[in-house]
Amino acid sequence: MGKYLLDKLTEYTESDAYPLHMPGHKRQLRSFGDAFAIDITEIDGFDNLHHAEGILLEAQKRAARLYGADETYYLVNGSTCGILAAVSASVRRGGHILMARNSHKAAYNAALLNALRVTWLYPETDMRRGICGSIRPEQVRAALEAGMCGQETDFSGKFYCGNQKRADSNAVGGEKSGRIAAVLITSPTYDGVVSDIRAIAEEVHRAGAILIVDEAHGAHFAMHSYFPESALSCGADVVINSLHKTMPSLTQTALLHVKGARMDRERLRKYLGIFQSSSPSYVLMAGMDECVRLMETQKEELFDRFVHRLQALRERLGKMKHLRLVTGEEAELYTFAFDRSKLLISTEECGSLTGPGLAKILRERYHLEVEMAAERYITAILTVADTQEGFDRLECALLETDAGLECESIDNAANRMTTEKKRTVLDESDVLSMPWPEERLAMAEADELPHETIRLKDSPGQIAAEFVYLYPPGVPILVPGERIPEELPGLLLRYRKGGLNVQGLADYSGNTIQCVSHGLQQDDGD
Amino acid sequence: MGKYLLDKLTEYTESDAYPLHMPGHKRQLRSFGDAFAIDITEIDGFDNLHHAEGILLEAQKRAARLYGADETYYLVNGSTCGILAAVSASVRRGGHILMARNSHKAAYNAALLNALRVTWLYPETDMRRGICGSIRPEQVRAALEAGMCGQETDFSGKFYCGNQKRADSNAVGGEKSGRIAAVLITSPTYDGVVSDIRAIAEEVHRAGAILIVDEAHGAHFAMHSYFPESALSCGADVVINSLHKTMPSLTQTALLHVKGARMDRERLRKYLGIFQSSSPSYVLMAGMDECVRLMETQKEELFDRFVHRLQALRERLGKMKHLRLVTGEEAELYTFAFDRSKLLISTEECGSLTGPGLAKILRERYHLEVEMAAERYITAILTVADTQEGFDRLECALLETDAGLECESIDNAANRMTTEKKRTVLDESDVLSMPWPEERLAMAEADELPHETIRLKDSPGQIAAEFVYLYPPGVPILVPGERIPEELPGLLLRYRKGGLNVQGLADYSGNTIQCVSHGLQQDDGD
Repeated sequence: MGKYLLDKLTEYTESDAYPLHMPGHKRQLRSFGDAFAIDITEIDGFDNLHHAEGILLEAQKRAARLYGADETYYLVNGSTCGILAAVSASVRRGGHILMARNSHKAAYNAALLNALRVTWLYPETDMRRGICGSIRPEQVRAALEAGMCGQETDFSGKFYCGNQKRADSNAVGGEKSGRIAAVLITSPTYDGVVSDIRAIAEEVHRAGAILIVDEAHGAHFAMHSYFPESALSCGADVVINSLHKTMPSLTQTALLHVKGARMDRERLRKYLGIFQSSSPSYVLMAGMDECVRLMETQKEELFDRFVHRLQALRERLGKMKHLRLVTGEEAELYTFAFDRSKLLISTEECGSLTGPGLAKILRERYHLEVEMAAERYITAILTVADTQEGFDRLECALLETDAGLECESIDNAANRMTTEKKRTVLDESDVLSMPWPEERLAMAEADELPHETIRLKDSPGQIAAEFVYLYPPGVPILVPGERIPEELPGLLLRYRKGGLNVQGLADYSGNTIQCVSHGLQQDDGD
Repeated sequence: MGKYLLDKLTEYTESDAYPLHMPGHKRQLRSFGDAFAIDITEIDGFDNLHHAEGILLEAQKRAARLYGADETYYLVNGSTCGILAAVSASVRRGGHILMARNSHKAAYNAALLNALRVTWLYPETDMRRGICGSIRPEQVRAALEAGMCGQETDFSGKFYCGNQKRADSNAVGGEKSGRIAAVLITSPTYDGVVSDIRAIAEEVHRAGAILIVDEAHGAHFAMHSYFPESALSCGADVVINSLHKTMPSLTQTALLHVKGARMDRERLRKYLGIFQSSSPSYVLMAGMDECVRLMETQKEELFDRFVHRLQALRERLGKMKHLRLVTGEEAELYTFAFDRSKLLISTEECGSLTGPGLAKILRERYHLEVEMAAERYITAILTVADTQEGFDRLECALLETDAGLECESIDNAANRMTTEKKRTVLDESDVLSMPWPEERLAMAEADELPHETIRLKDSPGQIAAEFVYLYPPGVPILVPGERIPEELPGLLLRYRKGGLNVQGLADYSGNTIQCVSHGLQQDDGD
């Protein structure tokens, strides 16, 4: 009946596998003690997270001071609940939100829960590598101006196939739609791409809206000037940081920061109380406090050392012959800034070697586990908790792989080194990215209408009623209400064959997809 | 700047304080290892909770087998997220739910998020002790019959002040209200009161609805026949068990069980994905799996010993002269069944000694920390992880307190034993419970309408726009849309003076309360 979790976790911990992935503590902190020993509940003297007045209020104040926030809230249900709460608190049911189309699944869920009308900001996409660029301030301005006078927006990103026909959003959430009440941007993205939050904040505030930044992957930004400026210091009203992703804290821990007076904090607290357990874990909370304590006492020392190691590594990896270190300065993409703690290694110039192929080499030959393998690159997450040994192993592995493998032989090498059945090479003809699908029905409407099950291969042209995304990174490729593009069935087939994790479909086998029932679809000729 | 959490937790753990409260592991399990050492993320071989196919699917199947469920889902955001997901999945936005008025805050939040029309089931209340009784199957039937033909219900419990004037619910959630789609009952309650789920399930299923049982406090029911039959085996469709409350598992862990085909599992999975972190903690999940493993291997032995200890303790405490062991067989209240692992000790025959007064004696003199002090009783939670030493200390402390304190001297004794400023005695004239407030506006409507801040003392007669509850247990005394009773200001004042934890009010000081703006209130004469 399979292994027990604890046994499998312990076995993994005792192996020599090195984590180039979340959580950011990299299993290096071992002075915490047994989880059960410090797991208590809200008894006398221990405060209540949902009504913090004592020791938890003090702990959250320490976090606020570290991050320069007016107020900081502990999140024990991850950034997920922070995004749900921030959106719910800033946009009334049926209201209007402006949201980057490359947001995390949680942002879509927040919009659906509140039956929001969503106007999308489409980032440019680097079709060669499949990486989304920054959201441009002028896109945000155009969308806000259109939103203010009730116009439909058409501020397509470079690769956005226009001609969008929006359903009447009043059908979705009631009478309150209209003015855009909040703007939600993900910065940095899972790939480390940062947007110009300062300029965007100016646009958003000029329009009287609230700027929420999903900075889940940027909790370390405020720790050192080597990293892009934090969204909070650039003027965002609400910022969500996953503490576990890039900082030494336990998985599922995050912080929500508030600055300024635009966000109604009473409403925010109300929703934080809704989306989080009424029995929050003191293990998770103590983990957050320990992370803050470590920074209070050793931030400069630890981050100086970390940045020094990063700089040295990036310099040496920049000289690889076949593998390419992505720097954010590639010509194909507008990148305002880039998080250099993320190591993206592209296989674009390695013939048919894929990201999963490279990840497999690193795992099987070097016992290095990366954060993500996309089709054409891998992502390694490096944090302040990484050891010199970890840096060295990664550098050696990449340099050796790069030096030892001539492009022509990579396919064989990759296939030789494993018994896995996953495809690790790409055909020349493979198109990496699909254009953003066209929105035909408002998302909340498509989500609520009757669905029918359609074979994936017959689905192009239908209106999707469910999400499709790769996990990681958890950004939807397809959203309810969007017209299913011709490319989708082939793309998903290729993803699966390539060992990427396609999720969202109710049908795990991926043979079918839920679509809005045919009789209810609008005329879909264009 | 106050203590760090870990230091305070460690200090508490190293003290000789004995926990008669959650979490159910009672800090007795210490073989878990350092939390950071086993905290990983969804890497190769470790499965994804939101798309479980490997080791997490197997772990959840083990839990399902232990509980006799068709399917069991791990919850890393507590029972809270299970209730949110179960309600959201079973009732469409704007739909109609039948819900016990003594439900946990999470159930109200679920109704609000989905703008549900709620019909309330009012349990009887034992006014002397302030304990809610069981929900009667005939109440449920009457409500369902009224709901089916669209009538307004009037199925008041014994102490419910009738003459309820319901606002037009169509204003709340749209066109889908009407037939009751789901029924939500809390059984056992925080006080251990169990309802006749078998008979209720028959009524609910006859009406074509789904029965959700919040059995957060009854995760141990299925482990031994000494406890009431579990809701799942009585025919409930969805059951939520907090694993951390009464079983040896970490705080914030819970299980959601499904049995039968009434619940749409695809919708359920969708909402479980919404209300839980996309980075679930392996520490929490391994904690659940260890709990299940312990039961797989030692359930009979551990629970036989536990029940034997409970029986012996209850027998001896039944002979106290002043303090009263609540048995669930008190004449004042209809109790279908009672959870005998909960120890409720009433001070009703101890003159003016209050629950907080008794809790204070136990804490300060015996270093015993109870789960809850209500006005007239205390609650101790005993679990399979309690030691013989724990049982002995509790028994000695209660017998000694009972024997040593003559009623007349309790006030002095209680006050002598502490330097706290909390009031620990009651006046003769104090009324313990307030009748259930009258509903004037639908909850979701009152929640969305403009609010105004009213001084608490001026609030009677106004329509509440926020919740008021004692935490614990987290059951609202007042719900948005209800008319504020005359008794409320005095009651809250007394609660606060008595050291009870009044929550829900945006104004922590408790001087004001949010009410529906006056111009928007209906004529409130009755």
